[in-house]
Amino acid sequence: MSPVSLSEIIAALGGDLHGAPETAIARIGPLASADATTLAFLSNPRYQSQLATTAAACVIVAPAFAEAATQRGAAAGGSAAAIVTPDPYLYFARLTQWWAARVRPQPVARIHPSAVIDPSATLGEGVDIGPLAVIEAGARIGDGARIGPHCVIERNAAVGPGTRLAARVTLGYDCRIGARGIVHGGVVIGADGFGFAPNKGAWEKIEQLGAVVIGDDVEIGANTCIDRGALDDTVIEDGVKLDNQIQIGHNVRIGKHTAMAGCSAIAGSTTIGAHCTIGGAAMIIGHLTLADHVHISMGTAITRSISKPGQYSGVFPFDDNANWEKNAATLRQLHSLRERLRALEKKTNSD
Amino acid sequence: MSPVSLSEIIAALGGDLHGAPETAIARIGPLASADATTLAFLSNPRYQSQLATTAAACVIVAPAFAEAATQRGAAAGGSAAAIVTPDPYLYFARLTQWWAARVRPQPVARIHPSAVIDPSATLGEGVDIGPLAVIEAGARIGDGARIGPHCVIERNAAVGPGTRLAARVTLGYDCRIGARGIVHGGVVIGADGFGFAPNKGAWEKIEQLGAVVIGDDVEIGANTCIDRGALDDTVIEDGVKLDNQIQIGHNVRIGKHTAMAGCSAIAGSTTIGAHCTIGGAAMIIGHLTLADHVHISMGTAITRSISKPGQYSGVFPFDDNANWEKNAATLRQLHSLRERLRALEKKTNSD
Amino acid sequence: MSPVSLSEIIAALGGDLHGAPETAIARIGPLASADATTLAFLSNPRYQSQLATTAAACVIVAPAFAEAATQRGAAAGGSAAAIVTPDPYLYFARLTQWWAARVRPQPVARIHPSAVIDPSATLGEGVDIGPLAVIEAGARIGDGARIGPHCVIERNAAVGPGTRLAARVTLGYDCRIGARGIVHGGVVIGADGFGFAPNKGAWEKIEQLGAVVIGDDVEIGANTCIDRGALDDTVIEDGVKLDNQIQIGHNVRIGKHTAMAGCSAIAGSTTIGAHCTIGGAAMIIGHLTLADHVHISMGTAITRSISKPGQYSGVFPFDDNANWEKNAATLRQLHSLRERLRALEKKTNSD
Repeated sequence: MSPVSLSEIIAALGGDLHGAPETAIARIGPLASADATTLAFLSNPRYQSQLATTAAACVIVAPAFAEAATQRGAAAGGSAAAIVTPDPYLYFARLTQWWAARVRPQPVARIHPSAVIDPSATLGEGVDIGPLAVIEAGARIGDGARIGPHCVIERNAAVGPGTRLAARVTLGYDCRIGARGIVHGGVVIGADGFGFAPNKGAWEKIEQLGAVVIGDDVEIGANTCIDRGALDDTVIEDGVKLDNQIQIGHNVRIGKHTAMAGCSAIAGSTTIGAHCTIGGAAMIIGHLTLADHVHISMGTAITRSISKPGQYSGVFPFDDNANWEKNAATLRQLHSLRERLRALEKKTNSD
Repeated sequence: MSPVSLSEIIAALGGDLHGAPETAIARIGPLASADATTLAFLSNPRYQSQLATTAAACVIVAPAFAEAATQRGAAAGGSAAAIVTPDPYLYFARLTQWWAARVRPQPVARIHPSAVIDPSATLGEGVDIGPLAVIEAGARIGDGARIGPHCVIERNAAVGPGTRLAARVTLGYDCRIGARGIVHGGVVIGADGFGFAPNKGAWEKIEQLGAVVIGDDVEIGANTCIDRGALDDTVIEDGVKLDNQIQIGHNVRIGKHTAMAGCSAIAGSTTIGAHCTIGGAAMIIGHLTLADHVHISMGTAITRSISKPGQYSGVFPFDDNANWEKNAATLRQLHSLRERLRALEKKTNSD
Repeated sequence: MSPVSLSEIIAALGGDLHGAPETAIARIGPLASADATTLAFLSNPRYQSQLATTAAACVIVAPAFAEAATQRGAAAGGSAAAIVTPDPYLYFARLTQWWAARVRPQPVARIHPSAVIDPSATLGEGVDIGPLAVIEAGARIGDGARIGPHCVIERNAAVGPGTRLAARVTLGYDCRIGARGIVHGGVVIGADGFGFAPNKGAWEKIEQLGAVVIGDDVEIGANTCIDRGALDDTVIEDGVKLDNQIQIGHNVRIGKHTAMAGCSAIAGSTTIGAHCTIGGAAMIIGHLTLADHVHISMGTAITRSISKPGQYSGVFPFDDNANWEKNAATLRQLHSLRERLRALEKKTNSD
């Protein structure tokens, strides 16, 4: 792929350019490993010191760092270009989008002859149906949607316009996802929720009669599962971002723009607010309600509803094994330690 | 789908009907969001107060609530029907089964022409082999079994009668599942267990020579993995219910009617008793034995065998981040706190 | 499968045979469940007592146990054969490999006609491309590689010689895996890393422009995910062994011969050293560095870098539910307990 000039980037994405517009950019990269054809960015002030030493052709910076970014090359006589913009991280995000559109193959409109498509399915304009995809009766694929190889769109399921499914995604019957979504490989949307009634020591299945309804601009990571509702639907609102290997139980509702990191899980019938973040491997039990703007740290088990925005945590602090063993063993006597402390306080105070 | 009358439901499922048999039911739903065509149920006495306010056409209740259920509409002049039955939750489970059979397409007997089936495979009567399924040499598919699109039934594997595999399930070579099972999308049964011998800093593979043997009436959630045994087989007994994203290591044995919630995991060679429940994201290390009727709370790490029935727990209680930080930091000194307390006790007692 | 004689095994794998070379071996099995045609092994001295009672035809032992192994049958007049070797566990590993090669079907060189292969893909000598596999433009499959049914090898991806992909594996565009690898079912290599810039309450996608680079002799368990890098690549070095259901974030680097157990996870941009072991369900946050020879216990959350080899742990010790509740509740007051203890110490000392 041939390099681009900084002027082309500025023309596409804006920003104030300090330095030579014809500077050639061959890659986007981190400050630390940048070379003379790299466009880098400084977002976290923690990495500010790297400005002085980076070999990057150009650095995207906030106004406060404009001087440092342009003067860094002065001593060495380098070009020291900079793009100044109020939010370098957002600029960087858009740069990656522009770059990806440039270097990746353009989407094609095609229906691969090996796909198995029921005649009653509806395909929008300009869709791309990959090899060996299966599209069942009554399914609807929106304009410009891309269905990867080996995807299964079950009966009466719906994929919104512009949504992209990677290879090997299942969208269960009656489930739907909105516009501009991205679903990565191995995702299962619409498997049965886990519901059983006890019956003389065995389990009687509760058929799951709801579906999954996913809004617009939702991204779902590889091998994540979202179960269909038992009676009503499981709902993922607009703009939600789910990482890989996540488990969403039946009848969960996740509010707009909430983001969940890998391996986290939400049990059935819990409602998560909007603008929340859930750390990796965090787990939330069923039938809870979390308010908007709640942030759960990685690995934390949430066992009660949370009505107040804020950060919540609960992981055992790791240590070298010998220390951990001593402290963990003592932890099992913690309640009795408190009782002994109380007794001592009483005695001392009465002395 | 047209509504049904209460009399049809009673005819199919039994129960004592209080109220008009011709009452039309269009959906099954929760008490709280019920409307005048909804059939709801009251199982947990905690929700008893909803009886007074629900708009449901009919409520399934235990005898103790029959009066409250039928009189709820009296003031408003409503019909206030009720189905009285000793176990409303079990009745509800069976109702969902009956309802699903009514509203879902009937299973068909077909072998999709795109499936790749080895001539030496054996297909029972009335099987449904979905598009693009792969059935290898020597595999056996029982009567009435349903193999979803993109499933892979490897050589000499066996699927019992009436068992249903959703799309994209792998049943590994020599593995077998019994009758009336349900396997959801993305499940991998029979991948190699994780076994290696150390060899001069590297790892030498221990080939996994066992298989996976799964009993009757087992349900397995989406993207769950069950590894084949190293020498003997991994065994899942009758009636076990596994949720999504579960990991079962090699040579594990799970006793009858045990249920495991999502994201839980069992390491190799551990034996779990019958009638146990394992909470979500709980993890059990290898080479342990858990007795029958052991219940593990969500998120708990089980590191020793358990010989006594009961409930076992071990998660760090979450808190707002500031409190958690203070307590977690102190936890690392817990052993020394105990020593200080002892010293103080000694000193105080000797004073 | 017909039995083999001990002499055949010794001819193939070496070791000092004590006992009759013509002894017939029909299976490899554990000491405890061995019968008169079983070849067993003793590696862990903990199981030494089983030597006296096992019915095994032959036991693989270290020199220190040679006498016990051969004399065990003396009283009963049994044959009591033994294979004496310095590292019985390694011998056992190689025996399973030899046994598997003997009892499993030989790999075939074939390109199944149902596979969808782009004409610009490069296939090596003797490859096996399974039914319904998809191989996209520019992909390269090395000599003797085996691509299972329903695998997707995306554009410009590369599979090294002798590497085996089970059914339903995705190798994303531009990603590559080296020689002699084993990848189990449902694995997704090269899904997008989880990267977003906040933008007025919503999330702006950071396109992931890197790939995944995997070395030689790497094994990857079922349904594990390895994300592509954001700018640079995600790197898995030679000899790494990953169990099932693992999540590897973007730009992670895992050093040679490190092994990770099931359900563990590493967040983005963390570097793990060589020869580490990561326990099941352990989780490591992003942007950390772990030294070589670091061992993380199961279920432990690693929140800071580790520069010193050793074993690190941090799980809440489980207990019966009543005890856990008492201790967990007290844990939330731990910091204030320390303050009270301090106050008491001060008072006592000043008395």
